[in-house]
Amino acid sequence: MKKLNVIKVGGNIIDNESALMNFLNDLSHVKDAFVLVHGGGKSANDIAKRLGLSQAMVNGRRITDGKTLKVTTMVYAGLINKTIVAGLQSKGVNAFGLSGADGNSLQTVLREVKDIDYGFVGDLKVDSVNVDFISGLLELGLVPVFSAITHDGKGQLLNTNADTIASALAAALSEKFEVNLIYTFEKNGVLKNVEDESSVIPKITKTLFKQMSLDGSISKGMLPKLENAFASLDKGVNKVLVAGANEVLNAINETNYGGTTIIA
Amino acid sequence: MKKLNVIKVGGNIIDNESALMNFLNDLSHVKDAFVLVHGGGKSANDIAKRLGLSQAMVNGRRITDGKTLKVTTMVYAGLINKTIVAGLQSKGVNAFGLSGADGNSLQTVLREVKDIDYGFVGDLKVDSVNVDFISGLLELGLVPVFSAITHDGKGQLLNTNADTIASALAAALSEKFEVNLIYTFEKNGVLKNVEDESSVIPKITKTLFKQMSLDGSISKGMLPKLENAFASLDKGVNKVLVAGANEVLNAINETNYGGTTIIA
Repeated sequence: MKKLNVIKVGGNIIDNESALMNFLNDLSHVKDAFVLVHGGGKSANDIAKRLGLSQAMVNGRRITDGKTLKVTTMVYAGLINKTIVAGLQSKGVNAFGLSGADGNSLQTVLREVKDIDYGFVGDLKVDSVNVDFISGLLELGLVPVFSAITHDGKGQLLNTNADTIASALAAALSEKFEVNLIYTFEKNGVLKNVEDESSVIPKITKTLFKQMSLDGSISKGMLPKLENAFASLDKGVNKVLVAGANEVLNAINETNYGGTTIIA
Repeated sequence: MKKLNVIKVGGNIIDNESALMNFLNDLSHVKDAFVLVHGGGKSANDIAKRLGLSQAMVNGRRITDGKTLKVTTMVYAGLINKTIVAGLQSKGVNAFGLSGADGNSLQTVLREVKDIDYGFVGDLKVDSVNVDFISGLLELGLVPVFSAITHDGKGQLLNTNADTIASALAAALSEKFEVNLIYTFEKNGVLKNVEDESSVIPKITKTLFKQMSLDGSISKGMLPKLENAFASLDKGVNKVLVAGANEVLNAINETNYGGTTIIA
């Protein structure tokens, strides 16, 4: 099977213009096929604030009301997505930006209201990823760049977590490719001590993960990332790597790699 | 040659949710291949105002400074483009949204500064349209939906007039398709008297156009549309139609058509 890298880039890199451009420049040296998924960074919050929208939060999670959805659609699928695509194009990468509505690439379902109404949030289902369409783009030599906006197939756009999108894409595309899933962000990897960049845990197995979850040594922000990682491994993904954005090429080539490798 | 309709939809339709949904519903009945190009409507101005950005205008034309470009990228390539794509998908049309950066579909050049510096505005060149890429999408059965944002190939996004994009797409795709170019908007066609919706001019030839330009009977807003129209006819487009948005199917099928037909 052909190799494919599904790469997620996190918010703090996107907010930093020079870090983003360095990252895109690194990606122009990737030899295998890849898919990029980006989060939103702080821009959406900043713009919402300037538009006078208050951001309802419950347990640290944003509630996506109608106005917030408009802002995230503008910022994620518009400004950030097109900035990344134009940046990659300028470096010779034939990038192509998408929301889940485009080519019906990611169809999700509105999250059910239980205790909390999260608003216009779309959850991925088993068959959310349009594998034929995305692998068709890859076969044309295109690099799909996904924003974290999906749709329900009935005309409703929905916000979806970018980490979850990356993990679902990696799992679904494992049907046709040998997929490595790479989470890049502003830290060097999964850290033992979140204050200490040198405390990268080189390898996390399921056993170690369970142990760390129990003793509380995994930070709140890292927990869903790791859960996604193990879920993707269960669904056929070859390897999951969590690395600093400046290490994306090392992660892809697995040489001089100083980040975290997650294996079943 | 296969038939292709290049359809431009104007701002006032986009600003009106029910008019837009009716229009998209009509498009779901189009049998031939088509490409949709959309303008921005008033949303970009409204949002810019709410963000406290003043819109510099010279001779009724917007000056696109860096902040304005961010707003138009958000609104055109983000909110409006994805709303249209999700709407078409909900009606069974396999739509796919693009800016010119995506797949390098439309590469323009920054407008030269002569008397006025228009800012981040991209002008189309002879080879701006990536015909192979766009016809590749059409062959896959996809419906490309273009926002009026392009790029210069060096990482810079640029604002480009949507009418001009439609006309350039129609001309370039005439190489591979028999193209009808259809401008739809809130009026019934090209009007003799802009206040009188029943004064549609059914047919405009080059001779009539020259005569009307001289006697000043063409409204300011219509002049560049008609100039684009004749330029496309010169470049191989079959026919240009200017019609009410509610008449898009009649214009495509050329039955019971009450709009304006422009021929060489």
